[in-house]
Amino acid sequence: MEENKDTRTELDELGEFGLIDQLTQDFPLRNASSLKGVGDDAAVINHEGYRTLVSVDLLVEGIHFDMTYTPLRHLGYKAAVVNFSDIYAMNGTPTQIVVGLGVSNRFSVEALDELYAGIRLACENYNVDLVGGDTTSSQSGLVISITVIGQAKEENVVYRSGAKPNDLLCVSGDLGGAYMGLLILEREKAEYLANPNMQPQLQGFDYVLERQLKPEARKDVIARLKELGIKPTSMIDISDGLASEVLHLCKESGVGCQLYEGKIPQDPSTVKIAKDFQIVPSITALNGGEDYELLFTIDQKDYEKIQTMSEDITVIGFITPDKGIAELITPDNHVIPLKAQGWNHFKVER
Amino acid sequence: MEENKDTRTELDELGEFGLIDQLTQDFPLRNASSLKGVGDDAAVINHEGYRTLVSVDLLVEGIHFDMTYTPLRHLGYKAAVVNFSDIYAMNGTPTQIVVGLGVSNRFSVEALDELYAGIRLACENYNVDLVGGDTTSSQSGLVISITVIGQAKEENVVYRSGAKPNDLLCVSGDLGGAYMGLLILEREKAEYLANPNMQPQLQGFDYVLERQLKPEARKDVIARLKELGIKPTSMIDISDGLASEVLHLCKESGVGCQLYEGKIPQDPSTVKIAKDFQIVPSITALNGGEDYELLFTIDQKDYEKIQTMSEDITVIGFITPDKGIAELITPDNHVIPLKAQGWNHFKVER
Repeated sequence: MEENKDTRTELDELGEFGLIDQLTQDFPLRNASSLKGVGDDAAVINHEGYRTLVSVDLLVEGIHFDMTYTPLRHLGYKAAVVNFSDIYAMNGTPTQIVVGLGVSNRFSVEALDELYAGIRLACENYNVDLVGGDTTSSQSGLVISITVIGQAKEENVVYRSGAKPNDLLCVSGDLGGAYMGLLILEREKAEYLANPNMQPQLQGFDYVLERQLKPEARKDVIARLKELGIKPTSMIDISDGLASEVLHLCKESGVGCQLYEGKIPQDPSTVKIAKDFQIVPSITALNGGEDYELLFTIDQKDYEKIQTMSEDITVIGFITPDKGIAELITPDNHVIPLKAQGWNHFKVER
Repeated sequence: MEENKDTRTELDELGEFGLIDQLTQDFPLRNASSLKGVGDDAAVINHEGYRTLVSVDLLVEGIHFDMTYTPLRHLGYKAAVVNFSDIYAMNGTPTQIVVGLGVSNRFSVEALDELYAGIRLACENYNVDLVGGDTTSSQSGLVISITVIGQAKEENVVYRSGAKPNDLLCVSGDLGGAYMGLLILEREKAEYLANPNMQPQLQGFDYVLERQLKPEARKDVIARLKELGIKPTSMIDISDGLASEVLHLCKESGVGCQLYEGKIPQDPSTVKIAKDFQIVPSITALNGGEDYELLFTIDQKDYEKIQTMSEDITVIGFITPDKGIAELITPDNHVIPLKAQGWNHFKVER
């Protein structure tokens, strides 16, 4: 934790209500739909004319983040943004968040201010209001629960279940970078633990580190699709790895798909680092997590339109009527059943 | 944990998605407003014609509950109900919840089924839908984050800020019981730790134990007030103790109040147990928490009407124009400034 040791304020100096006041004081309400924010039994929201979207993520220290290399400001930013991503994945607009925070006394008020500075920046960048929360003690690690509220016109909501045969499978941005960033951070942590005098070697890894530590949600992609008049037939955000998300879309839509391994978009630095780690690069996209790109299907009639976004959107396959059969086509035309290795948090631990 | 040792299923046998399927399978959607529940990036809710209310609570093992004496089914029930209480405190109706769960592998699938059985019962009793969640590993204790979504017509929403001079200060039910229940449980735990062969002595304490372990939200009070045509001018639920909540209402409304100590409603068993513990009974109401009764103010014109609820509602004081001056009037007419001792979770720990 980077904090000035001259100004360490203990949490119990403020108490729960004082702490909430301190943390939430610089969160002006930006959305007219936020009728009442922090400070009552519940927030009050006006989504008249819209459907309300709700999603929650729970981030637990030691599972989702490691305080050794995660600056609190980045953690706050990421915790908020990954929730916004869930709302964009419904083709909606995030409008409010409520934050539950469990924290032990090893954190100072100044440290939590850093965390909230990150949440605040995310709210500014994505025009979202913090409208409530619950702050409590925790006997062990830091726990952050963010619930995001969003809105969408009913006719615009995109579910995971709408993909149909012959639809094109598309993905935004590039994949695998966040996982490579994590491997770099874990490697440097291990080096540091073995030899505390060593400086971490992070030069040249900027891109993948930013993908891991400060991801963005693809608000821009949603806006551009709307401009082009494209409504995806199904959509999901990529938090667990491409393979897992493709399987979700196929399962919920009752379809199959063919996914071209060679088409998977990857940044050159991701590919290079993967090779240095002796990992097949596409595996970092298929099974690595936390890229927060959008995976979606579109009707073939929208193919021309989507080509105008080709710097940002890649067509990586297509939907088949073969329910339950999702296949990966390798560059040398082998056909492999797609399997989700993804993250199984419960496996990591024992 | 009461579970059959013959059937212990490890969490990693199911994986995250399998576990979510298992836990959420018996939650039918009851509200027409729940357009899409568990199984997409976000839930989709139709609150057309209403305002949306949102509140979150984070419950952390060792801080909010002790697994030694808290059955998981009760814990699930309570975790849900205390959230519903926040929505009733806005004069609204809870309609949906999303549940974030952090859990270590010392819990089995069967144990989590118990927890969800409690959440399910609460949802049944209060007609609320479980529409989403996030289930993850935790390296230490159990963490439950519940976000409740509710609705209210805009003109019916009651804030903490509407109390005005001469309004009557009212409270539902009786106070202090939940805190007495906690003291009994803590006492028996200490006895048990000192002598594991001892049977806990819980006979005769049914009322206060139920207040602690299985509280109810005052849905009935909200319904009855509506029948009588009474709209409170301000309202809050009592989670931290009466003194703390009265001070919240006064602060948010910019008023003062006089609270008659002798009027505070208490169950005879609460009074008896308090005396056995050598605690002044009213202190258990003023500073004990978790009663989840409703504290509200009404206009004097509604006095006659509220009298018809006198078995359930007690007038305990009145609002004054003296901003910042909240006073307790003792039975022998001493005037004492009201102070919130309440819960300071951050103080408990060090």
